Amino acid sequence: MKYVILVRYLGTDFCGFQVQPGLRTVQGELNRAAEALFGCPCAVTGCSRTDSGVHAEMFAALLAPSSEEAPLVPCDRLPRAIAAHLPPDLSVLWAGEAQEDFHPRYGILEKEYRYDILNAPVRDPFLVGRVWHYPRPITAEMLSAMERAAQAFVGTHDFASFMAEGSSVTDTVRTVSSVSLARTGNLISFRVRGDGFLYHMVRIMVGTLIEVAEGKLTAADIPAILAAKDRRAAGMTAPPDGLYLARLFYPDGVLPTSF
Amino acid sequence: MKYVILVRYLGTDFCGFQVQPGLRTVQGELNRAAEALFGCPCAVTGCSRTDSGVHAEMFAALLAPSSEEAPLVPCDRLPRAIAAHLPPDLSVLWAGEAQEDFHPRYGILEKEYRYDILNAPVRDPFLVGRVWHYPRPITAEMLSAMERAAQAFVGTHDFASFMAEGSSVTDTVRTVSSVSLARTGNLISFRVRGDGFLYHMVRIMVGTLIEVAEGKLTAADIPAILAAKDRRAAGMTAPPDGLYLARLFYPDGVLPTSF
Repeated sequence: MKYVILVRYLGTDFCGFQVQPGLRTVQGELNRAAEALFGCPCAVTGCSRTDSGVHAEMFAALLAPSSEEAPLVPCDRLPRAIAAHLPPDLSVLWAGEAQEDFHPRYGILEKEYRYDILNAPVRDPFLVGRVWHYPRPITAEMLSAMERAAQAFVGTHDFASFMAEGSSVTDTVRTVSSVSLARTGNLISFRVRGDGFLYHMVRIMVGTLIEVAEGKLTAADIPAILAAKDRRAAGMTAPPDGLYLARLFYPDGVLPTSF
Repeated sequence: MKYVILVRYLGTDFCGFQVQPGLRTVQGELNRAAEALFGCPCAVTGCSRTDSGVHAEMFAALLAPSSEEAPLVPCDRLPRAIAAHLPPDLSVLWAGEAQEDFHPRYGILEKEYRYDILNAPVRDPFLVGRVWHYPRPITAEMLSAMERAAQAFVGTHDFASFMAEGSSVTDTVRTVSSVSLARTGNLISFRVRGDGFLYHMVRIMVGTLIEVAEGKLTAADIPAILAAKDRRAAGMTAPPDGLYLARLFYPDGVLPTSF
């Protein structure tokens, strides 16, 4: 039996999802815990690669024990059973039986990322590593300008200008279906939903929006930045700390509506 | 000039507020940072002792440079100026000029503590060290029983049964002015406000409320537990992780209404 699992992790102390020799990764920890639980090596396939320091409220993976003789762990018991083998910064929240042809990466329709900015004079000890601390005041007017610029990301575009170097991806066209910016107290949350994201795409979007707040760019510049298809046309790359993989959209029936 | 400062800290890696030789404490870090800023030793007096691992959303302290020749740091600049000398888990949020007779501990009218319980089958990586993870389901009925028991804490009582051993306090009468229990999603927050709190008092209250949820005690037992004036009569001590010093009440004008 193969399982779909929903995982949550605090990315601070992980070098991203994917196994890398000698580094602490989410996939590596899941491999280790699943082997301890099932008594045999287990293949773990994730829904996305995430960068070092990036968090996941919700991350889907396919967990496949390699042996036919692995014990059958009931889905409703798997999260608590595997918890004993997982570190504190990684949990399995839910497990279900995977359809034979399920693939967490190719089967996904859309993902939603959230990026949190703490806009306050001093850092908040409760949010260190979990937000981008941006101390200069972002006024209501500046936030409106950021919102206008963010709306220009919506649609099907070539996002090559929003891709960091070091990616082997050649098709850089993606569809962003929605964006939003909301302020709650001194926390500003940017949400972006789309069918796929390039290497550092959300972080470059956020860095660009901050340059809009600072008056270095305006909403009207976004179409030209997209058209340039050149990383140098866009703004800075925001740090990983504030970035969360927040929601996953699969065809009906793959994930529970609540858990 | 003496300053009133409002401090926030994540208690996980602190051995409480008060300086102890060889241990990392909030007072120790504030002493070090203030000396770096003012160029002379500074006395730091806190509004409360807090235990190892306990957090503070808001903690008041008096900061007094020992030298008359210390530079005059304007209050509105102090939080950012001292930030460079503070570790990530401790911030000064606000500073004001202290009245000559101000004492953060003796001058306080009331304090409010919050205690957060995560009631979910598995731990949440974002909340490790910040909540008490209690995995067995707490039903609406159980929560109502906890609420009734919590209300029995309100009033002026001898709370000796809710004081851990190791305290030198002899007058154990305190007035609790309000309590509340609220559930948001899988987070249950207990709030208690009063004129003073004994060693481990809130944590023993929470441990006792959990025993009410478990049916080991009922709300009707609380008066007898108080009357016993014996630590053994009350429930277990909840872990420090979920405890936050949340609000401070001083006479008008000491603290800002917002900052």
